[in-house]
Amino acid sequence: MSDNNQPLIEVYGHGGDVETAAAAFGRGASAFLDYSANINPLGPPQGVMAALEEGMSAVIRYPDPGHREFKRLLAEELDTEARRILVGNGAAECMALLLLGLQPRTVGVVDPCFSEYRELSMKFGSDIRSVCGLPERDWRADKADMMELIACTDLVFVGQPNNPNGVQYSLEDIRDLAAYAVQEGTWLVLDEAFIDFIPPEDRQTLMPELQDYPRTIIVRSMTKFYAIPGLRLGYTVAHPDVIRAMAGKQVTWSVNGLALLAGEACLGSGREYEQDTLQLIRVEREKLIHGLRALGLDVTPGEANFLLMELPRPWNAGTFQQEMGRRGVLVRSCAMYPGLGERHIRLAVKDAGSNDRLLAITAEVLGNPSADAT
Amino acid sequence: MSDNNQPLIEVYGHGGDVETAAAAFGRGASAFLDYSANINPLGPPQGVMAALEEGMSAVIRYPDPGHREFKRLLAEELDTEARRILVGNGAAECMALLLLGLQPRTVGVVDPCFSEYRELSMKFGSDIRSVCGLPERDWRADKADMMELIACTDLVFVGQPNNPNGVQYSLEDIRDLAAYAVQEGTWLVLDEAFIDFIPPEDRQTLMPELQDYPRTIIVRSMTKFYAIPGLRLGYTVAHPDVIRAMAGKQVTWSVNGLALLAGEACLGSGREYEQDTLQLIRVEREKLIHGLRALGLDVTPGEANFLLMELPRPWNAGTFQQEMGRRGVLVRSCAMYPGLGERHIRLAVKDAGSNDRLLAITAEVLGNPSADAT
Repeated sequence: MSDNNQPLIEVYGHGGDVETAAAAFGRGASAFLDYSANINPLGPPQGVMAALEEGMSAVIRYPDPGHREFKRLLAEELDTEARRILVGNGAAECMALLLLGLQPRTVGVVDPCFSEYRELSMKFGSDIRSVCGLPERDWRADKADMMELIACTDLVFVGQPNNPNGVQYSLEDIRDLAAYAVQEGTWLVLDEAFIDFIPPEDRQTLMPELQDYPRTIIVRSMTKFYAIPGLRLGYTVAHPDVIRAMAGKQVTWSVNGLALLAGEACLGSGREYEQDTLQLIRVEREKLIHGLRALGLDVTPGEANFLLMELPRPWNAGTFQQEMGRRGVLVRSCAMYPGLGERHIRLAVKDAGSNDRLLAITAEVLGNPSADAT
Repeated sequence: MSDNNQPLIEVYGHGGDVETAAAAFGRGASAFLDYSANINPLGPPQGVMAALEEGMSAVIRYPDPGHREFKRLLAEELDTEARRILVGNGAAECMALLLLGLQPRTVGVVDPCFSEYRELSMKFGSDIRSVCGLPERDWRADKADMMELIACTDLVFVGQPNNPNGVQYSLEDIRDLAAYAVQEGTWLVLDEAFIDFIPPEDRQTLMPELQDYPRTIIVRSMTKFYAIPGLRLGYTVAHPDVIRAMAGKQVTWSVNGLALLAGEACLGSGREYEQDTLQLIRVEREKLIHGLRALGLDVTPGEANFLLMELPRPWNAGTFQQEMGRRGVLVRSCAMYPGLGERHIRLAVKDAGSNDRLLAITAEVLGNPSADAT
């Protein structure tokens, strides 16, 4: 078994990099079953692909620099005002604009977490403070530790649900953190990029009462739930002063015309697609949790469309990734996440057929750990 | 005649904003003959639209964060190395990344010029110094003034050809400026966003000898010549240290997957499209120059796919824009460009039929300056 703690396919720090995988495993980029990126397995709503095909001529015009139509629809959907929304070139741009616009000297993160919180903060010159999630709390941090983080930084990122473990904090906890953030004059950024994968009745979101917490900022993504990561589209909801500060750092036309078109179509795609997605994810996630536990993996019971788990000894994430990659399955090594160990991996929740194949190939690999190892 | 020096349709500082025009003139956004944006009138190469239609499934995957295939093709096309290229979410992002990566305290601009040089510099905290182009030199600045600008700033933007006047500096002058930039330790940014519209034999570009001038940076756009502004795609060629500094500030996946796909198809689109474009622009530009001069406009003899001109008295740009807009034609007011006056406008060079219609409507408006004026 090879000892491989260097990222093999996460050379840019993320999953979903099928080009790197293609070079690493000698297959075409489209020939992989990609469990390393967390995209809705249903694919985009039918109406979205139709809108893109019909509206393809949008490529020959400049995008609306004010994102007006998409923002109007979004304000309606979220029951808020357009001036409280910033549309971004993906949620990642929203985070970058928060850092550029608010210029926190010190940024707080809760490990393990989405690597861009750290990456972007370092890019734009902020110092990092961190606290660690607790294994016994499914990698949620202690609330007292988070309060302390809020007290000693200018801006704190919290994933709700958090990536890579997929769990939420309770709305009660979030309210306490948001109130404390006001008191301390700290920005609290709730990254809800994956919250759409949780049934509405279970979502612990501050969105409906966001106006009561002027220091809290919500970032969301359109590309994961609606399966359009190639187009880039995210948004931020916050106090109008925050939106203004972010807009003051955004490059004109940063959101492309097809992303806006697709976003408008997504918001009009109806509840059936949402219901089907939630149903699929719930059923398949349960199947994966049970199936993977039966194979000896220690699976964190996440609520989103991905699962964090620990491989049985003597496996490590790099070797497992290599064995799976050779068999055409991409998994996300989490060995590089501060707070996690070298046996942690993350898997997306996909459709039934893919998940059955994943379980079968995982069983094959784990059953024969030294097969083909170099 | 109304007195209107406030931007009517340039509320975001640019032309091509058909949504604002639609609200201002009570027509559908697609019902305008848009002379305010400078896009190839041939539209995208056939192969590009076909590649987008066939490759639409790229929307469901993350874009390659390393832009590897497009960069490889571009390096081949430009006869340079991939490590000397940064691919951006439009040329505007390239400029933003230059400012974020190089952090010039003071930026120099040559008026009149593309408004983003100033806007972006202010966004990212640089002070601005400027020199003015001379009317008798078709709004080119004096070389001595440009040298002084290079001496007293950290980074200077020069449009080659310059927007809105459409003229180039001679390669000899550019070489002198680039050599002086090395001596002064100043970054010289040559914005060649429109240079593809000039026949290769007439292009005054430092590209083939860029390695000799480590302080010179070339920014180019793929969206104007290939008519894909809705997708956003530009690039920078510079010393690898500059590229590294820029990449250090770029948000992951900032360039979307369809832009990369289209860019790859553009580079493989063959010489015929290029020839056809150059031929069309040359013939139609001459026709517009003569036609508009015959109507009493003072037209600057630009070399690109747009023309700067001054309206006859007593017209001003705002009123003219309004009269044209009511008739379904969008023109770019240049009244807000430092260095230009309230009678300056800019018009794109489009296809023969559109240009004939433009000339006819212009004649109608200028022949009856008070018609319908409010």
